[in-house]
Amino acid sequence: MRASCPLPRAETERVLLGHGSGGQLTAELLDELIVAELGDGEALQDAAIVELGSTSVVFSTDSFVVTPRLFPGGDIGKLAVHGTVNDLAMRGARPVALALAYVLEEGLPLAELRAVTASVAAAASACGVRVVTGDTKVVDRGAADGIYITTTGIGARLPGAGPSATRGAPGDVVIVSGPIGAHGTAILCARGDLGFEADIRSDTRPLHDLVAAMIAACGRDIHALRDPTRGGLASALNELASASGVGIEIVDARVPVPVPVAAACDLLGLDPLHVANEGCLVALVAATAAECTLAAMRSVPAGAQSRIIGRVTEGPAGRVTARTLVGASRIVDMLVGEQLPRIC
Amino acid sequence: MRASCPLPRAETERVLLGHGSGGQLTAELLDELIVAELGDGEALQDAAIVELGSTSVVFSTDSFVVTPRLFPGGDIGKLAVHGTVNDLAMRGARPVALALAYVLEEGLPLAELRAVTASVAAAASACGVRVVTGDTKVVDRGAADGIYITTTGIGARLPGAGPSATRGAPGDVVIVSGPIGAHGTAILCARGDLGFEADIRSDTRPLHDLVAAMIAACGRDIHALRDPTRGGLASALNELASASGVGIEIVDARVPVPVPVAAACDLLGLDPLHVANEGCLVALVAATAAECTLAAMRSVPAGAQSRIIGRVTEGPAGRVTARTLVGASRIVDMLVGEQLPRIC
Repeated sequence: MRASCPLPRAETERVLLGHGSGGQLTAELLDELIVAELGDGEALQDAAIVELGSTSVVFSTDSFVVTPRLFPGGDIGKLAVHGTVNDLAMRGARPVALALAYVLEEGLPLAELRAVTASVAAAASACGVRVVTGDTKVVDRGAADGIYITTTGIGARLPGAGPSATRGAPGDVVIVSGPIGAHGTAILCARGDLGFEADIRSDTRPLHDLVAAMIAACGRDIHALRDPTRGGLASALNELASASGVGIEIVDARVPVPVPVAAACDLLGLDPLHVANEGCLVALVAATAAECTLAAMRSVPAGAQSRIIGRVTEGPAGRVTARTLVGASRIVDMLVGEQLPRIC
Repeated sequence: MRASCPLPRAETERVLLGHGSGGQLTAELLDELIVAELGDGEALQDAAIVELGSTSVVFSTDSFVVTPRLFPGGDIGKLAVHGTVNDLAMRGARPVALALAYVLEEGLPLAELRAVTASVAAAASACGVRVVTGDTKVVDRGAADGIYITTTGIGARLPGAGPSATRGAPGDVVIVSGPIGAHGTAILCARGDLGFEADIRSDTRPLHDLVAAMIAACGRDIHALRDPTRGGLASALNELASASGVGIEIVDARVPVPVPVAAACDLLGLDPLHVANEGCLVALVAATAAECTLAAMRSVPAGAQSRIIGRVTEGPAGRVTARTLVGASRIVDMLVGEQLPRIC
């Protein structure tokens, strides 16, 4: 479905900011170049599962280049821990250990490096994971922007867990664990170039306890999980619909968008469905397990505001639609191009 | 021992290129800031060992920022695979899977990204490891220099393996697997700012088969392994001596330095012991197993030129010395400051 609106080749001969958006250009870069060269279909999952001895190791990596590095609700260190912890959780894993790689720009104040490292340590400790290994490189002034962090995590699959982007099935309910759009709008506000002030904090938060509660209650009825980071909820739903070969229909009015987020998006001409999140998840769940799952999710702070926003349909495969207030239906596309560079 | 020549605080308030050298400043940054905040003594090993279920998972991460990205003998993609494969091998692991994270600069030609990715794929395939997951971020033009790659690997410990930086013991022999200094001098030559031409190729190469042969033959008599990358053989020996609380004495004339490397180092005023390597290892091995180890190493192409270059002494702990041709003894320090920025 992603090739429905391919950009002319001439425009894609160089890396564009949009290739990092998490939207359609990112998907094309992955499909047509990176996965094509590496030849591994697992690459589109948030995390891979590797059999090692008698253990299923869940394994995920993410680089963080967010600017500014300090923003309401978090900082690059916290984000780097939560992002990788959440990618492990989306494959049904209990996160166990992290590796931490820094690329530092010459001239970065050591005090800032210490503060970021302390934030990594505090976030990891709060998640119950250990930072067990790492690497530090320094590049010359002007060859990076302060600090880039790559965190890689390993975890053990929870007993009875089976979530995979490919397991969505017609009839499943679509559940989100909380309000959307806070992270992306918080970063925009923190950049101070909006022309207005808004009291929005990033939702960055670990989701592994939430996932553990869902799996413990409903096991393999939790078909697919995704944290809608770059590219927002729209891109996450499109990815799940494509990977599972199903359609997804959501109800616009059921999607929880906080008032300040909606106001900021209105002013900026953004669709909240395309704005990045760092503290909520979307789940495709067997309809028979919907109540069980919602109850489990609401028992955990990160899932207190969980709600059903739609359902999985027969298709067309990869098609995501939204029913509007007036009863019409519109297509929800992946983000095309770049909306907010360096959001995570 | 590293604090023997601390830099004045005022000079270290910002990140310096030397903090990425792999030498003394890197060690100070790790000890005094990063490990101090994260509180984990494992951080100075090349890789960590994480118990997951009934499996010992070996886990290592490395970022690659080398410039130029293409050089005689290799490129950034190949280096990124070999570097992490070798870090796993130094903890006695069979490498199994890699995660690949890109930070790309807006404007990078897609053709170059494709070439680097193909190089990653070919190197991984040649090492028998799969790239199973990844991430791609794009930063604005000028906020990175082309491509930075972080590879993270997981592997399974080889049966009977016990190498650890802490296990060196007085009486051990010190073995290197091949000539030193090629990678660093090859990179310098490739930058074309030497004022002379030299026919030197990087030694970048995977070492896991070499390690497997050593462990299969001599098991836990292989006390410690290190690949002397940034900071060179001198820094690797200093790290092993410090971690094991022993002294190390090498014989200058026994250290294999290829003639073109020695000539380039002479002209540039570099000590080959401080120049980075990407395709050899140094081992501390029980003296009783020296012959067995050498035979095993020489049976593998990567170890064909293995030789004993010294021995482990009672100390002083952390002291590395070299016996010179005239019979004198000099102290071999870690690299202080920065010799060759962005060497890997």
